[in-house]
Amino acid sequence: MLEVKPERFLDDLHHLRSFGAAGVGKGVVRPAYSPPDIAARQWLAERMEEAGLRPQFDPVGNLFGLVDAPSLLLGSHSDSQPEGGWLDGALGLIAGLEIARAAREAGGPPVSVVSFQDEEGRFGVTTGSAIWSGNLALEVADRQTDRMGVSFAEARAAMAHLAGKFVDPSQFSGFMELHIEQGPWLSEAKEAVGIVTDIVGIRDMRITFDGEQNHAGTTPMHRRRDAFQGLARFNALINERFRNVVSPQTVWTIGHVALHPDAHSIVPGRATFSMQWRDGDTERLSRMETVIRDAAEEVASAAGLGLSFGDMLGLEPVPMDARLRAALCESADTVAPGRWRQMQSGALHDATNVARLMPAAMLFVPSINGISHAFAEDTDEADLVTGLMVLAGAVGRGSV
Amino acid sequence: MLEVKPERFLDDLHHLRSFGAAGVGKGVVRPAYSPPDIAARQWLAERMEEAGLRPQFDPVGNLFGLVDAPSLLLGSHSDSQPEGGWLDGALGLIAGLEIARAAREAGGPPVSVVSFQDEEGRFGVTTGSAIWSGNLALEVADRQTDRMGVSFAEARAAMAHLAGKFVDPSQFSGFMELHIEQGPWLSEAKEAVGIVTDIVGIRDMRITFDGEQNHAGTTPMHRRRDAFQGLARFNALINERFRNVVSPQTVWTIGHVALHPDAHSIVPGRATFSMQWRDGDTERLSRMETVIRDAAEEVASAAGLGLSFGDMLGLEPVPMDARLRAALCESADTVAPGRWRQMQSGALHDATNVARLMPAAMLFVPSINGISHAFAEDTDEADLVTGLMVLAGAVGRGSV
Repeated sequence: MLEVKPERFLDDLHHLRSFGAAGVGKGVVRPAYSPPDIAARQWLAERMEEAGLRPQFDPVGNLFGLVDAPSLLLGSHSDSQPEGGWLDGALGLIAGLEIARAAREAGGPPVSVVSFQDEEGRFGVTTGSAIWSGNLALEVADRQTDRMGVSFAEARAAMAHLAGKFVDPSQFSGFMELHIEQGPWLSEAKEAVGIVTDIVGIRDMRITFDGEQNHAGTTPMHRRRDAFQGLARFNALINERFRNVVSPQTVWTIGHVALHPDAHSIVPGRATFSMQWRDGDTERLSRMETVIRDAAEEVASAAGLGLSFGDMLGLEPVPMDARLRAALCESADTVAPGRWRQMQSGALHDATNVARLMPAAMLFVPSINGISHAFAEDTDEADLVTGLMVLAGAVGRGSV
Repeated sequence: MLEVKPERFLDDLHHLRSFGAAGVGKGVVRPAYSPPDIAARQWLAERMEEAGLRPQFDPVGNLFGLVDAPSLLLGSHSDSQPEGGWLDGALGLIAGLEIARAAREAGGPPVSVVSFQDEEGRFGVTTGSAIWSGNLALEVADRQTDRMGVSFAEARAAMAHLAGKFVDPSQFSGFMELHIEQGPWLSEAKEAVGIVTDIVGIRDMRITFDGEQNHAGTTPMHRRRDAFQGLARFNALINERFRNVVSPQTVWTIGHVALHPDAHSIVPGRATFSMQWRDGDTERLSRMETVIRDAAEEVASAAGLGLSFGDMLGLEPVPMDARLRAALCESADTVAPGRWRQMQSGALHDATNVARLMPAAMLFVPSINGISHAFAEDTDEADLVTGLMVLAGAVGRGSV
């Protein structure tokens, strides 16, 4: 067994929070490439060096702490949402650092650490690991802009003085990421650890109903082609039909709605809305897509509405590596017997990208009340330490 | 009978269109206080003078063409929607001008004319006639702003060089307004004229559901308090319950929807939307209000959502004056036998306000395909002339 030191781990985790500490509770404001993000990464590089690792920044700001041998890679990300909490990303990174340190102190196994850049997607989705894994071309990423119109190329220039080469992934035998759950399941069940079976796939598209913009006083109900009524009918129809398709883990969301011309006295002539759905099973994602397209077409045809579908964004479900996952389960059974489960990840993580390059696995600790991406995000320190111990146990087995 | 001259009437109507002519077809862009609106009113003042009327602007830009005797008042408005057609408002005004001219040529009866300002509500609803009738205090109106933040006080300053005193309404024995229907009934039935029985009442309010903003990937469906789902459920519920309350003329509309934060990957934490309903019967408007408030409360309570109602705007239904209406019906029976009907107005008009001061009545001509407030708005010239003849016939009877 590796002798991780919970106090050293918690101290580093709290210290990392001081970069960008803000808001109420344990709030953190540390978006990718902001001054607090860069300062945090420089401090991390020093901690890596102290731990006997060789720090290396790559051209997009991903920070690796390397051992000079084939090794496991542990980590996550240290950037935050525009308003985030202290654990999201930070936990997996500092846990990796502590385990690499303990492994070095114990004379093995060799463990490297990484903090990916812009996991929170100031410029897209899991940008740093997407580029490193080859999921996203650097020249494409460079043209992407944030909400203020700043390009990725401009933003990463702020770290140019630190940048070395891209790290060769072939030196790593596998990747493991500890993360807060960001959902309510573990917290509700008062369990300590979740071993991830797979990261769900996501489908996301825009749908538009085109009706007829008209006077809300003089257009009789039977003569209307009201685009909002089309949206409402579509929503009811898919909610009803999904019942025979979904699992309790499946989620779907209409989070964005734009009516035109969006005025009290005008029958809406157009409704554009977002339709997003997530599930761990590609087959189910496809069946849901069929329900969605069929329902939209039925509504449009019955109500005399035009219909158009936007491009569909699709990320496939990623199953976690069976061997790494088994090691995590065995370790959980030792560290927290009866207080862990296997579960799906409904959120995206860097492991989705890294899984293209090497065996990858994840484990979760509870988020109190399921809250994340908010200043109120938190986890009991006992659970943080349990997560660290389970991960260390899996690494210490040597079999991974 | 008064000898109105259809060609002179149509010439003036087409000339008025040249102020702000835009877009396709017979489109007009002539919002209240815009340069084309002011130029059109100055041209109208000259036409009034040529017709032997005394033009007088009041402090808010309402333009009267007066005879120096107690008289009937005819007219409507010459401002347009941001994107409007050539007839809305213009028709009733130019018809009034032609009838006043013909009456003057015939030696009586005395007829005055008016073009109210901002009927289209750049600053509210039927602003000019609302102020003139005492429905809206000038100091309140002066604080109202348009979508760009311009105040009514600033806007009407553009006409200050033309402004005289408010016109004393006691000199008028009654008001009649010819207007395009803005709905499909006459066009569908191939009828030429509608005599208005009453102008519907309107109720308009904002409703807000407050739910819980959350991660669209990790928040299970049963744990969500999704404000958009609340709106969709509310919409279904009122559509179902209104069946036992409404008449075929009743209309209701959700025309504006704002979700917060309005993002694909976030369960909507708030939905604010407009709820508007119109009917000729005050009692029915109240029963609909009860259905709306009860349904919103049921949905909020069942779905764990917060609920708030904004202020309710209410304008009561206005019955048209029986004597003027009878004169219009008799005239219609002479001019267009078998091709007219009595009907309700689902749109608001200046007559709603003027009815506070004196007997008021309205008549409609068809809108082709029911289109109005759009560049495509139009009416057959034969129907325009029939409307003019019916109004002239009612005036010429002398009994009004």
